[in-house]
Amino acid sequence: MLVIGLMSGTSADGIDAALVEWPDSEEAVPFRLVAHAHLAHPALLQQRIHNLAAGGVPGPDVLREVAALDVELGERFAEAALAAAKAAAIDIERVDGVASHGQTIAHHPEHRATLQIGDPSVIAERTGCTTIADFRPRDMALGGEGAPLAPFFHWAALSATTENRVALNLGGIANISWLPGSRDPDSVVAFDTGPANSLIDGVISLATEGREAMDVDGVRAARGQVDDLLLHKLLDDEYLAKPPPKSTGRERYGTAEARSLLSSSRSVERGLDDLVATLVEFSAESIGRACRDLLPREDAAAKQIDRLIVGGGGANNPVMLEAIGRALPGVVIDRFDDHGVPAQAAEAMAFSLMGRNTLLGIPNHLPRCTGASRAAVLGEIVPGKTPR
Amino acid sequence: MLVIGLMSGTSADGIDAALVEWPDSEEAVPFRLVAHAHLAHPALLQQRIHNLAAGGVPGPDVLREVAALDVELGERFAEAALAAAKAAAIDIERVDGVASHGQTIAHHPEHRATLQIGDPSVIAERTGCTTIADFRPRDMALGGEGAPLAPFFHWAALSATTENRVALNLGGIANISWLPGSRDPDSVVAFDTGPANSLIDGVISLATEGREAMDVDGVRAARGQVDDLLLHKLLDDEYLAKPPPKSTGRERYGTAEARSLLSSSRSVERGLDDLVATLVEFSAESIGRACRDLLPREDAAAKQIDRLIVGGGGANNPVMLEAIGRALPGVVIDRFDDHGVPAQAAEAMAFSLMGRNTLLGIPNHLPRCTGASRAAVLGEIVPGKTPR
Repeated sequence: MLVIGLMSGTSADGIDAALVEWPDSEEAVPFRLVAHAHLAHPALLQQRIHNLAAGGVPGPDVLREVAALDVELGERFAEAALAAAKAAAIDIERVDGVASHGQTIAHHPEHRATLQIGDPSVIAERTGCTTIADFRPRDMALGGEGAPLAPFFHWAALSATTENRVALNLGGIANISWLPGSRDPDSVVAFDTGPANSLIDGVISLATEGREAMDVDGVRAARGQVDDLLLHKLLDDEYLAKPPPKSTGRERYGTAEARSLLSSSRSVERGLDDLVATLVEFSAESIGRACRDLLPREDAAAKQIDRLIVGGGGANNPVMLEAIGRALPGVVIDRFDDHGVPAQAAEAMAFSLMGRNTLLGIPNHLPRCTGASRAAVLGEIVPGKTPR
Repeated sequence: MLVIGLMSGTSADGIDAALVEWPDSEEAVPFRLVAHAHLAHPALLQQRIHNLAAGGVPGPDVLREVAALDVELGERFAEAALAAAKAAAIDIERVDGVASHGQTIAHHPEHRATLQIGDPSVIAERTGCTTIADFRPRDMALGGEGAPLAPFFHWAALSATTENRVALNLGGIANISWLPGSRDPDSVVAFDTGPANSLIDGVISLATEGREAMDVDGVRAARGQVDDLLLHKLLDDEYLAKPPPKSTGRERYGTAEARSLLSSSRSVERGLDDLVATLVEFSAESIGRACRDLLPREDAAAKQIDRLIVGGGGANNPVMLEAIGRALPGVVIDRFDDHGVPAQAAEAMAFSLMGRNTLLGIPNHLPRCTGASRAAVLGEIVPGKTPR
C-alpha cells in the first residue's frame, strides 16, 4: 500500500509529507520511504496560525479565522501530498490514502478535547485520494491524552523480536519508547526523559544574541570542558527521578532556565563552551538514567537494552551521541536513518502508518502510552474520488 | 439498512434523532421511519452554544470552548442516537450507521468555510456504530455554498416519475424544491420563496408581549379579514420577483419588519387578527407566485405542478394551507407526513439518507442547488467498533 503521511508541528513552519510503501498485512515491516517533501508555510500563514493558537484573535473573529484556516491549510496539506507524489514520480491515483495529522490549534486533555485543522474534505477533493485525519479525538474519547502517538510507530516500525530496543527522539525535549523483544504492544512504555537540545539551543541563542541557534555538529561541546559541579547540581532534579508516565516541556527546560544558567557566576567565569559541554552531558546522563532506572522492572532479563535508535535533530550531534554511549555502556547506538526512517520524515511516516491502519481496520495507537482504556482504530476517513 | 440521522439546528434547543430503514440500493425508496427521538439541550448548554456562535466568548478562551463543546455535544449526539434505537426497541449493534449533521457554529460561504461541532469520534466510540459527519465541507471544497442540503432528500424521498411535485417547507422562511417527474437530479431547483411564519410569529409575539408565540391552528387568521391594500403593498417586493438561486432570512422578514407592520396606522386601526390574516395571505401568495412564475421554463409541460407536499410548522395551520390552495388552483396539496416523513423528523431523516449514501459511495447532494461544480459523496466516516 502507498500512503502519504502529512505532519505540521506546533512550530507551524511548514508541512512534511512522506510517501511510504507498506505491506497490506497487520505487520508494518518491511516498509520503504519512497519520497519525502517539505512545503514551507509563507510567513504570514505561520503568523496567523501562531496568533490563533495563542488566543490573539479577538473573540468575535475567532470562529471565522478557524473556519478559514481550516480550509486554507487543507489546500496546503493537499499541495504537500501532491508534492510528495511528484517527488516519487508516482501518479497520485496510485496512492491508496493520504493521512493527515493536521495543525493542532488546541489540546486540552483535561476536557478530553483537541482541535486539529486542515480540512480533510479539501485534501480528499484536491488529491482524489481517500484521506484519513483527526486521529487524536478517538483516543481521547477512550479516556486517553490523545498523545503521545509516535510510540506506536516506533513499536510497529522499529521494534524487533531479536533484541530489546529503545527509540530515542532528541528534539527540544528527549523522549524514549521502550520496545522489548516480546513485541507486545502493551509492554511499550514511552515518556519524556528531560531536555535534549532545548537548554543547549537556549544558552547559545541567548549568548550570541540570536546569531547562532544551535551547536552545529557539536563543535562547541567538543571544545568545552564539563563542569562537574554544575552537572551534579543539574542532575539533582526531581523530574528525572519521577517514574513514568510523565511529560515535560520548554516551560521547565526552556528559555527561562537557559537564561538563569547563563547568568550564574560559574558560567560567566568558564564561558559558553563549557556550559554547552555540561548541558550535553546533562541531557545524555538524564537519558541514560531513564533507560537504566525507569524502564519496567517486571522482567529483569527483558530490561536489558540491546540497541538505542536515535532520531531528531540531536542525532546529528556526535558529542551528544558519544555522551549517551558512555551513559549506556554495552548498548549499540544507531540512528532512525539506519532503519529506513530519515529524521526529517519520521513524524510524517508515523501518520502514514496510522492512516494505513485506519484503512485496514487495525488499531493504531498504544493505550498504555496514551492512557486510553483500550486499543481502537483512530482516524476519520474521507472518501476520495466519487466512483462513477 | 438502518441508519440514524442526527440534527441540531441553529436554535440549538436540542437534537432530533431519526432511525430510518432504507433499501441498500441506489434508490432511497421505499423507506420507513422506525423511530424518532428528541433530546432537549439543558438551558446552560444552549446558552453556551449561542454565546460561542455569536462571538461572545473572549478571544483567548474561544478555542478551548470550541474543543470542549465539540466533545460535550458529541456525547449528546451519541445519547440521542442511543435514544432513537431504544425508542425503536432495536439493538444499537444492528444499526449500520449514525449520520450526524453536527451543530453549526460558523458558516462562511465567502471563504468556502463552515464549522460543525459534535465530535464524530465520540459518537462512534459511544454507539459502536460507524459514524458519518461533516457533510458540508466537501460541497464547499467543490465551490458550493454547503447549503441547501434538504433538496437532495426531497428529491430522493419525495419525487415521483408519475407527476411533477414541489416540496414546500414552511418554517420561519418558506422554501421550495421543484421535483419534476423526470427525476433528473440536475433538474431540481430549490430556493427561499419569502416569509412563511416569521412575520406572523413576529407580530403576534410583539403584540402580545410574548404571551403568544404563534397563531396556533390559524385561529387568528381565520377570525381576521385580509387587508387588500396592505397585501398589495407587501406583494410589491423585489425579492419575490427575483429569479433563483436566492435565499433570504429573518434579517428581511423578521422582527424589525414585524415591528414596522404592527406600528402602522392601518394595523392599529384594524387590529391584530386582520394583520395576521393578511400576512398569511402574503406568505401563501408569495409561495404561489414562486411556483407559478419562477420554476424553470425550459419545458412548458414539465412546469405544471401536480402536487405540493408541505412540511414544517406552517403545515399545521389550516388557514395557510387553504390560502396556498387558492394561490395554486388544480394542485393537489398534502403533507410530508402523508409520504412517511413526519415534520419533526424530516431534517434528521435527511441526514440519515445522506449518511447511508456516504456508506454506499453514492452522491448525496445536488450541485445545481448548492453551486458545487459536480456531484460528490459528502461526509467523513469514523469506524465504529474496533474489529477483534
